[in-house]
Amino acid sequence: MTTQDLRNALARLAPKHLEEFRRLVEIPSISAQGTGIDEAAKAVAELCEARGFRTEIRPTAGNPVVCAWGGADDGPTLLFYEHYDVQPPEPVDEWTHPPFEITEHDGKYFGRGTADTKGHIMLRLAAIDAAREVFGGDPIRYVFLVEGEEEIGSPNLEGFIEDNAADLKADACLWEFGGVEEDGRPGVSLGLKGIQTFELRAQCPNRDAHSSLGAVIDNPLYRLAAAVASLRDEDGRILIEGFYDDVRELTKAELAAIEAEPPRDDAMKAEYGLDGFLGGASGFELTRRLQAEPCLNVNGFHGGYGGAGTKTVLPSRGLVKLDFRLVPDQKPARVVEQLESHLQRNGFGDIEVIPMAGEGPGRTPLDDPFVKIVCDAAREAYGMEPLIRVSSAGTGPAAPFRDVLGVPFATAGCGYPGSRGHAPDENIRIADFENGKLHTALVIAGLRGT
Amino acid sequence: MTTQDLRNALARLAPKHLEEFRRLVEIPSISAQGTGIDEAAKAVAELCEARGFRTEIRPTAGNPVVCAWGGADDGPTLLFYEHYDVQPPEPVDEWTHPPFEITEHDGKYFGRGTADTKGHIMLRLAAIDAAREVFGGDPIRYVFLVEGEEEIGSPNLEGFIEDNAADLKADACLWEFGGVEEDGRPGVSLGLKGIQTFELRAQCPNRDAHSSLGAVIDNPLYRLAAAVASLRDEDGRILIEGFYDDVRELTKAELAAIEAEPPRDDAMKAEYGLDGFLGGASGFELTRRLQAEPCLNVNGFHGGYGGAGTKTVLPSRGLVKLDFRLVPDQKPARVVEQLESHLQRNGFGDIEVIPMAGEGPGRTPLDDPFVKIVCDAAREAYGMEPLIRVSSAGTGPAAPFRDVLGVPFATAGCGYPGSRGHAPDENIRIADFENGKLHTALVIAGLRGT
Repeated sequence: MTTQDLRNALARLAPKHLEEFRRLVEIPSISAQGTGIDEAAKAVAELCEARGFRTEIRPTAGNPVVCAWGGADDGPTLLFYEHYDVQPPEPVDEWTHPPFEITEHDGKYFGRGTADTKGHIMLRLAAIDAAREVFGGDPIRYVFLVEGEEEIGSPNLEGFIEDNAADLKADACLWEFGGVEEDGRPGVSLGLKGIQTFELRAQCPNRDAHSSLGAVIDNPLYRLAAAVASLRDEDGRILIEGFYDDVRELTKAELAAIEAEPPRDDAMKAEYGLDGFLGGASGFELTRRLQAEPCLNVNGFHGGYGGAGTKTVLPSRGLVKLDFRLVPDQKPARVVEQLESHLQRNGFGDIEVIPMAGEGPGRTPLDDPFVKIVCDAAREAYGMEPLIRVSSAGTGPAAPFRDVLGVPFATAGCGYPGSRGHAPDENIRIADFENGKLHTALVIAGLRGT
Repeated sequence: MTTQDLRNALARLAPKHLEEFRRLVEIPSISAQGTGIDEAAKAVAELCEARGFRTEIRPTAGNPVVCAWGGADDGPTLLFYEHYDVQPPEPVDEWTHPPFEITEHDGKYFGRGTADTKGHIMLRLAAIDAAREVFGGDPIRYVFLVEGEEEIGSPNLEGFIEDNAADLKADACLWEFGGVEEDGRPGVSLGLKGIQTFELRAQCPNRDAHSSLGAVIDNPLYRLAAAVASLRDEDGRILIEGFYDDVRELTKAELAAIEAEPPRDDAMKAEYGLDGFLGGASGFELTRRLQAEPCLNVNGFHGGYGGAGTKTVLPSRGLVKLDFRLVPDQKPARVVEQLESHLQRNGFGDIEVIPMAGEGPGRTPLDDPFVKIVCDAAREAYGMEPLIRVSSAGTGPAAPFRDVLGVPFATAGCGYPGSRGHAPDENIRIADFENGKLHTALVIAGLRGT
């Protein structure tokens, strides 16, 4: 088997794969709006069945999960974590191309889900087909886990993985997103942060009062402001007792990988109109914080008068929305306890704490053999040294893959910085799509040990 | 002259005064909406002219001020500060009676402005008429100052008083509001707090960003929360350096007057559903804070996501609206400087400070002879010991009366706790209206020294 064999096979099969891709994108499987869910699950299942995979659409409390098993009877097993749901197309007016079909234009495929993440489902299926041709049969075992709620926070995925762990065992996992960096280098991401979101609520008078009464009646917006201010310092360091206890130290190899990343300082400053970063971070430290530092965000703060001019009101109520981004080995449930007890201990027992969504962090060790396979495959497919990212700054359902299945995961994909995921004119570059198929096929070959 | 003479004269003139009152209330002179302004100014001027007063409608940068001079050629001068503008009637659906006419029902006069403050214009005119009859001529000199912007914060009054001070000289002033307490006792208020309002604005990224970037980009809602938290402690004490420097100490007599007030603790707790008050204040201390303690209010705090569930956004901008209530001898302009330098000194130089409205505080000393005149008149008119209030908890344009005209002021009026000022079904009780006329007439008599 040579890389060129795989490339040839993929080129020959490309029209068929594009047809399959078109059918997937044409289904508006919008989890936030509840449309096209069953149709998309069925379509994915059919694509797996067409390859001779044993396929099941398993129910959850929310949208069903498509599971499929196929490939070799023994040997290494590669798990593909994907999702068939997409973001809503709104604002529809801002699309240059129709959201729910694939438009080929300017070397790109436009359409909702091309990057996130129906394109990635196609990379896996195309790679399987090419490997089957070139190897004269499936070189390894495959498991598909294709959920339908990723775009609404995967609320049922952890439970599903726990309940179905025996059926999802694998030696390695390719993650649902991935792609190339700004400069065209393939990126390989090995982790995701966790998250715990909260709503904080305060009430002082039981109805809005005249602000002259502020001399004697406390103010819910002050209460919330003081509570929020107590949670972190001006450099972004979180002041909750024990918050950093579970933060796993980065290994020397991870620190070196972070150090090796091209600095993003100037690009981020330009993109967001900034003079500098929290705590004066720059270079290595900027990258380290993005990938490996937990943080607190205030997503929203609302109460009282917000219009023009002055209204001397003492508002009855206020509302704050927070998220904490977590890193291994922090646990969302422990952060809930820590925030509650911090507020109690610091005189904010009057503030109602409502935990919202929680997702644990996960990170594949840099020295896991699968990381080498994915990086070698990337180097071969793209002809460039891959950029290893210890972790994404973002969040995904990584915890059950690490903690329940114990599987290493990495990314190999077709996104790029201009993909406009979640936005109008979502797109992938056709060259990245083809390279992503090859990258995936080379991961399959690598896992087989050829 | 006996009180009964005044009472008889007022009773005889009551139908005429009710007709005049009706005409005033029928003009929807809503300063916030710019309706009926000239008509109301003209109507007030005509009522003064009809009594032989020299009357002028003087322009300002906003709504005109009606000034009138009349009464005796010499002797003491009593200034009536009033306003011809009213609050909007909205929500109109919630009125049981038409807002812009007087409806007599259940011993009350309903209609917008009956309490605030066209009823008070009528008390003064009725008292002048009765005193003229009983004394066989005007016993003292009168000046009317009737503005048209009280309900929008009197933005032009201070300047008007400064520019027209020579024409507004007086020995004493009756304020535009006043009335009886919950238990029917006449109240005499001697002061008003000042105010300085602000808008604080923060911006971090120049557009909303994904909250995963909160690891390195600061958050405008945290910046504002920390700034607000730095301004006061949990007991309501303001932490701005020098903020209390100009607070005039209460005299023994003022402390005694505050001590003599019936405690409002239980009533306020019930009205606003509270367990207690800021800093554990109760009884005397509760009243003292309401009347004589400056305070900080957060009127509004807005930024980022406020809807249901979670949105992991790092908002670009946030907005806070604040008011400081001030007491003698604090100055709004000094509070502007103090807030700006507090934020600079405490690391919040990134926060934009926008001073909005400012109004100075004012308080008539308890030992001013006019206070005794107003209290004696109240005792005589109502047959009950008046309740002296060192200051209202609220704000009004007191500063130019104290600082420019140097005139003592006090209240004598027809409002009551059920008056629903600014709300649907604004009303006064007819008995309070009649007693308020008599109280005003007795103040006139008292000022003459009879």
